[in-house]
Amino acid sequence: MQRKSFRDMTCPIARSLERVGEWWSMLIMRDALNGVRRFDDFQHSLDIAPNMLTKRLNALVETGLLERRLYSEHPPRHEYVPTPRGRDFRPVLLAMMSWGNRHFAPEGPSVMLVDTRTGQRVDPILVDPATGQPIKAPDYVVKPGPAASERTKLRYALREPTAGPATSKPGRRKSAPAAPRRASSSS
Amino acid sequence: MQRKSFRDMTCPIARSLERVGEWWSMLIMRDALNGVRRFDDFQHSLDIAPNMLTKRLNALVETGLLERRLYSEHPPRHEYVPTPRGRDFRPVLLAMMSWGNRHFAPEGPSVMLVDTRTGQRVDPILVDPATGQPIKAPDYVVKPGPAASERTKLRYALREPTAGPATSKPGRRKSAPAAPRRASSSS
Repeated sequence: MQRKSFRDMTCPIARSLERVGEWWSMLIMRDALNGVRRFDDFQHSLDIAPNMLTKRLNALVETGLLERRLYSEHPPRHEYVPTPRGRDFRPVLLAMMSWGNRHFAPEGPSVMLVDTRTGQRVDPILVDPATGQPIKAPDYVVKPGPAASERTKLRYALREPTAGPATSKPGRRKSAPAAPRRASSSS
Repeated sequence: MQRKSFRDMTCPIARSLERVGEWWSMLIMRDALNGVRRFDDFQHSLDIAPNMLTKRLNALVETGLLERRLYSEHPPRHEYVPTPRGRDFRPVLLAMMSWGNRHFAPEGPSVMLVDTRTGQRVDPILVDPATGQPIKAPDYVVKPGPAASERTKLRYALREPTAGPATSKPGRRKSAPAAPRRASSSS
């Protein structure tokens, strides 16, 4: 399957997708973070073809999200355990679970996040850890960072980060440098 | 391209991926949420083949993440604007940006979330909106919800949600009902 790689892009979302964006990878991480360890259990949980599961598990090991551990020597059997990098992916999946429950679960939640001390369902939100404030525009916006390429800086200069109603701005590019807009796939 | 659909799965993560899991879709949403509106601008930003971009934009419109709006009648030209459902996807992308910046940006962040009032970089965390507490195991775990299928309940009963070090539990399945583990692809 031919597919453009996101690896050379500098955007952290693109780089993340390069590691977990293949079909199946996030569901494998979902199961791994939920305690699934063994090949057969992943296969049963996901109803995935064994060769595809092997491929995806190997990729997640190579990328450092899962660690392969021998749990039986005779016969040799491995289990797959989330690394710190893999465990750190949990917020992405929880944010996706919340979004899915809000928008694609008309019959109610099939799974949900629960506070084990109260039994209450929790719909988690993203906040600024320094202030506890919810992350919302226009107080919080994405901007180029210290390692931004000129291209990234230009891209952000050309757009409206608060993403209000679309307005036609025919002249918005006239003051921008004449960068080769298609010269690079970097993000 | 043949690919198993996640549409019939009940898991909200799988259902989300059915809508945004195709290669490119999340980067298109990243750009749309950052203010990109027009076909040519998406194409320039992403360096994506036009036929693929058309396909992905149409899918995101069908799924209700983007709305197509006519901005010019002669010639007819459309722009793509995030719907409330699309805007609600932002936390997933921000969580992914944080993860990418932590793990795949050795040269420093190329883009980052910033508090516009202080100029400070923010590394957002997921919290329980009721208590402000960070979402961490074992206080917060994913459990079957009211709409869980028998299969989902069984799956969660068989696993260790806190995902500690893997332990061999040879007898852990003996007390579970003899469900047809591969009979369904539902999640």
